[in-house]
Amino acid sequence: MSEEKIAVIGGTGDLGFGLALRWSLAGAQIFIGSRDEKKAQDAAQRLKETVNAGGSPRTELLVSGCENSQAAAQASVVVMAVPFPAQAAILKSIRGSFKDAILVDTTVPLAATIGGKPTRLLGVWQGSAAEQARELTPPGTPVLSAFHNASAEALQDSSITPDCDILVCGDDEAAKKTLFSLVKLIPGLRPIDAGPLEMARIVESMTALLISVNRRYRVHNCGIRITGLPVEARSG
Amino acid sequence: MSEEKIAVIGGTGDLGFGLALRWSLAGAQIFIGSRDEKKAQDAAQRLKETVNAGGSPRTELLVSGCENSQAAAQASVVVMAVPFPAQAAILKSIRGSFKDAILVDTTVPLAATIGGKPTRLLGVWQGSAAEQARELTPPGTPVLSAFHNASAEALQDSSITPDCDILVCGDDEAAKKTLFSLVKLIPGLRPIDAGPLEMARIVESMTALLISVNRRYRVHNCGIRITGLPVEARSG
Repeated sequence: MSEEKIAVIGGTGDLGFGLALRWSLAGAQIFIGSRDEKKAQDAAQRLKETVNAGGSPRTELLVSGCENSQAAAQASVVVMAVPFPAQAAILKSIRGSFKDAILVDTTVPLAATIGGKPTRLLGVWQGSAAEQARELTPPGTPVLSAFHNASAEALQDSSITPDCDILVCGDDEAAKKTLFSLVKLIPGLRPIDAGPLEMARIVESMTALLISVNRRYRVHNCGIRITGLPVEARSG
Repeated sequence: MSEEKIAVIGGTGDLGFGLALRWSLAGAQIFIGSRDEKKAQDAAQRLKETVNAGGSPRTELLVSGCENSQAAAQASVVVMAVPFPAQAAILKSIRGSFKDAILVDTTVPLAATIGGKPTRLLGVWQGSAAEQARELTPPGTPVLSAFHNASAEALQDSSITPDCDILVCGDDEAAKKTLFSLVKLIPGLRPIDAGPLEMARIVESMTALLISVNRRYRVHNCGIRITGLPVEARSG
């Protein structure tokens, strides 16, 4: 059980819904955000039905659907899980609602988001989608970057245990510690401290690499694991 | 035992020496290249002594030291293992010596190679060091990119079994097949087809990421493994 209140902006999409589902299962309080409140409520309902259909009905699921800024206003952790072309506008529309929240950006500037190849990236002036997010958030808001390389497909299917490290980038150590605890709520995921937020330039691009490997090997759920870490990190 | 003749350009450096050592141990014929023939010969001698000191003296080691272009002239596979600032000039000096060889570029354009941070990259006009290498090699030469993420420290110590996947990028399937067999000669390494040569932009950058993780966790030999591959790929 986590005491964090998590807003998943874009929680109706594949990655957002997958994260919302997993955190719900772990007992966290989830606010699924969408530009369309009705769609957010539908996703919250779908989440409950998905859990119930899984054979383990839980009455204690704490999940609701809200318009994005309403979701952000209630959260201690705001997770951005929207397509790259929508990231800046949505951030501008919700940043006035942040109440001492940590922002976790999951955005990957894939060329595919504007009609290009999924194995290629767009250039972002600030260096990465995460650094763009930092520029668009209120001063003092801790901005982290994570979850780029987790399979959205695997997260949405609670019968699957993901097999992936979550590379977390950011400049706020306390915020990282909070996010590490949220990553550990999801079986199969292990948080790895990848360094400052600027390292998101690399971690974001690794999504395109994994898509390339998925294609070559005709699979859907490639992930990565970091080897050679000390024992205490191995357990997360 | 491999029938390939491998030139390791920059075989006196850490990564080059580590690869030469491992392939020698596997029975491949190695030409250690350096701009200075004497240094190359010294490295070949050091390689032999390293193997003998390891307690398993092998009289059949096929390793010699040569000036770079002499090494390239004798090889079916030419591995570039030089610092990024030296890559272009050395390629220009040896490309006239290629005899139907495959070029394997291992170069990473780390900012540290010109005095910057090891967790940052230089921009390369062609997109990656490997694509720069392709521009500088004779037409028809298959160019691959690999070995960026293997720990040079681990490769040089034959008592260590590396724990790392080798992401291979390139546009020539036959050349990839040859290189895959060379990767498999080294215990602990598994070749992964990462897609076309342009994916080297991402794979090269992952070296900077691993350096960042090494620093955070105070270790030296972080590597990566790809998860979620089909069983036939798991064994390489």
